[in-house]
Amino acid sequence: MSLDPAIAARLKRNDAGLFSAVAQERATGAVLMVAWMDDEALARTLETRKGTYYSRSRQQYWVKGETSGHTQYVHEVRLDCDGDTVLLLVDQEGAACHTGTHTCFDADVLLVDS
Amino acid sequence: MSLDPAIAARLKRNDAGLFSAVAQERATGAVLMVAWMDDEALARTLETRKGTYYSRSRQQYWVKGETSGHTQYVHEVRLDCDGDTVLLLVDQEGAACHTGTHTCFDADVLLVDS
Repeated sequence: MSLDPAIAARLKRNDAGLFSAVAQERATGAVLMVAWMDDEALARTLETRKGTYYSRSRQQYWVKGETSGHTQYVHEVRLDCDGDTVLLLVDQEGAACHTGTHTCFDADVLLVDS
Repeated sequence: MSLDPAIAARLKRNDAGLFSAVAQERATGAVLMVAWMDDEALARTLETRKGTYYSRSRQQYWVKGETSGHTQYVHEVRLDCDGDTVLLLVDQEGAACHTGTHTCFDADVLLVDS
């Protein structure tokens, strides 16, 4: 799958050809997870509306929920002002975090509300 | 300012010693911006409750709103499951984006809702 050249031209990638993707739950506004994409992962996400990322450690694409069943239906994708982060508005099936929590930010609070 | 060693031990930094920071507006849930931090930027943010980041291009710390007046009061900070992203829940004064929009994700929609 290839990415629309007009979109590809606006992306700013790191040295590994990657940029950040933030997945946010559409219904609740919860920030679920942050992962990496390359052009191909973004193209697949836009085409299939399934949250698709690139794993640096495994050096392969992964469709969120492919093994866990905790899929993401992607409603909307936005690129930020400097072109190095996309924001995905998703419907999250089950837990977004591989640890079983709803979001990847549930377990470790560094600073409590005041 | 130095970061609590117990927190520092849980961080996973990139080759440049940096990790991602996502700023989310507490009142609306809007994802405002994504920027970089190092240990010092996080320590300053935790200590002062002012969103403080590290600029790769300028190679210096910046306190959000220091020049624009568009400050961030940080209510809460959370670390994600793999330790490479922090989520800041903030009160955003004025526009979060340097372009003048409320968030950095307002201008460029790659995929519309369906």
